Amino acid sequence: MDVGGTKIATGVLRAGELHDRRVQPTPETGWEAVLDAIAAQVLDLQARHPDAARVGVGVPGPLDMARARVKFAPNIYGFTDVPLVDGLRDRLGQRIVLENDAKAAALAEAHLGAARGTGSSVYVTVSTGIGAGIVLNGRIWRGRHGIAGELGHVTVMPGGPVSGAGLDGALEAVASGTAIARDASYALNRDVSTAEAFALAAQGHPAARRIVNQALKHIGVALADLQKLLDPEVFVIGGGVASVGDLFFQGVQAAADEYAAGFAPVTIRRAQLGTEAGVIGAALAAQQEGA
Amino acid sequence: MDVGGTKIATGVLRAGELHDRRVQPTPETGWEAVLDAIAAQVLDLQARHPDAARVGVGVPGPLDMARARVKFAPNIYGFTDVPLVDGLRDRLGQRIVLENDAKAAALAEAHLGAARGTGSSVYVTVSTGIGAGIVLNGRIWRGRHGIAGELGHVTVMPGGPVSGAGLDGALEAVASGTAIARDASYALNRDVSTAEAFALAAQGHPAARRIVNQALKHIGVALADLQKLLDPEVFVIGGGVASVGDLFFQGVQAAADEYAAGFAPVTIRRAQLGTEAGVIGAALAAQQEGA
Repeated sequence: MDVGGTKIATGVLRAGELHDRRVQPTPETGWEAVLDAIAAQVLDLQARHPDAARVGVGVPGPLDMARARVKFAPNIYGFTDVPLVDGLRDRLGQRIVLENDAKAAALAEAHLGAARGTGSSVYVTVSTGIGAGIVLNGRIWRGRHGIAGELGHVTVMPGGPVSGAGLDGALEAVASGTAIARDASYALNRDVSTAEAFALAAQGHPAARRIVNQALKHIGVALADLQKLLDPEVFVIGGGVASVGDLFFQGVQAAADEYAAGFAPVTIRRAQLGTEAGVIGAALAAQQEGA
Repeated sequence: MDVGGTKIATGVLRAGELHDRRVQPTPETGWEAVLDAIAAQVLDLQARHPDAARVGVGVPGPLDMARARVKFAPNIYGFTDVPLVDGLRDRLGQRIVLENDAKAAALAEAHLGAARGTGSSVYVTVSTGIGAGIVLNGRIWRGRHGIAGELGHVTVMPGGPVSGAGLDGALEAVASGTAIARDASYALNRDVSTAEAFALAAQGHPAARRIVNQALKHIGVALADLQKLLDPEVFVIGGGVASVGDLFFQGVQAAADEYAAGFAPVTIRRAQLGTEAGVIGAALAAQQEGA
C-alpha cells in the first residue's frame, strides 16, 4: 500500500509481480479516516488473497526510529505524529510494516526496476523536494538515527538560498522543482511553474535555460559526490521533475561525468516502476522484515 | 605492516593487542628495494611468531580494484603501479593482503580504537590531503569501483579553488593542511605553514583566524552532510592537522552541529591509535579476508 496526499494505491506482490492494483482517493477528514480506509483495503485484499500475509505501507515524510509512527506528512491532511502501526494493529489485529515512500521506491527499483541485479544503488526522487534511498546489499541503509538518504538537505552551495530546515545552500533549495519555479518566477517577474521553466529552457530562453542548467548541474555534482563517497553501482532517478526526460537526464549526466572524471563512471538510469514503485517497495519492505 | 614515505612499521596483532612493534626507514632506491625490505620483515616476524599466518600491508595511495597493485603512492619513491601482491608472493611464497592506509586506519579505529563497539563509523584523516574510510557492519565499504570514501574530492564550494584532479571547490582544496597553508601564505604575503596558521589563529590574528575557521567550517559541514547521507554512529578524525587538538575539534563540531541540527546529532571523536592505526588496520584487513 502506498499512501499519498491524494491517492491510496494498493496491490498484491507475488513472485515479483504486482496484482490487483487499485487506487482510491485519500480521505481528507483526518488521519483516523485515512487509517479506516487503509484497514478496509487490507481486509478486502486479504479476503481475496488469503496467502498475502504481510502488509507494508509506504508513507511520505519521516518515520520515527522504530518506524511505528509518521512524524509528519505535509501532503496528507492531518498527518502529524500519527501512530500508524498501532492504529492499524488495533483495526486489523496484525502488525504492518511502515516504510518511507522514497525508501520504498528505492527498494522497488533495486529489486524489480532500473537497478535490478545490482548490489548497491541509490534512488533519487526529484520533485517539489529531493529525497533518496540508499540500497546496500539489497537492503535499505537507514543509519544510526534512520535519516540516511537525506540528499535534499546536504549543503551544495554555502551561502545559497535558505530552506525550511534553516540552512543555506541545501541541494533541494537550489535544484528541486520548487527552487526552479522560485528562481524562474523571480527572473521573469511572474508566476512560472517548474514545467514552464523547463519548456522555456528547451526553447532557449536565456534566464530559464540558465536556471534549469544550474539546477541540473547541482544534482549532477551531488551524484558525483555520492559516487566518490559511496561508489554505488547505479543511480536511479524518478520524481516529477525527472519525468521531464532527456533535458533533465542529459544535464545531470554531463555534470556528474565532469565531476567524477578520473574517479569512476557514474551510471544514471531512469526509474522504471513509475507510480507503482511505492506499492511494490512497501510490499518488499514487509517481505524483508518478515512481519 | 604499514609502509609510508619515510617509515615501514611492523607488528604482530594477537587478540586485539599489537606486539613486537618495529619501525625502520623506507628504502629510497626504488620499489624493488621496498619489497625486499617488507619481505625481510615478514620472514623475521614469522620466524619469531610462527602462529601469525596472515600478512596485511597498508600503503598510501589508491589500489587497483582487485587490491593487488598500488596505482601510485606519491610519498614513496618509485611507487607507481607497483605489483605489490605478486612481488611479495614471489619473495615469500604466500599471499599478502593489501589495504589503503586510510582504510586500514578506519578499520583499526572501528574495531580497537575510538569507534570500538559501533556498527558504523567514518574515519577521516585531515593532513596534507583529506581522506576517509567508511566502516559499515564492521567492514570497509569499498563500493563498485573501490573508490568509496574519497571525501577529500567531494565538491563543497562550487567555483572554489581547483585541485590536482581538475575540479573546483573540492573539500581538500579548501580545508586540508595544504589549503590552509596556501591561503595563509597568500594573506600574509610570506610562507606560512599549517601549524603557524593555527598558532596565529589561536593568537587572534584576523586573517589566520578567518582562514582556519573557514576550513574547519567546511569540514564540519561535510561531516553534517555525511550524517544526513549515511548517518554513521560516529566519526573519528585523525591526521596531522587534527592533531592540533581543541581548536580543530571545537571548530569542526560547531559547524557539524549547526548544519545537522534538526536531523541527527553528529558524534565526533579523536583518533586513539595514532601512528599504530596503520599496522593494526593492515592486520585486521588480512584477518577479515582470511588470506
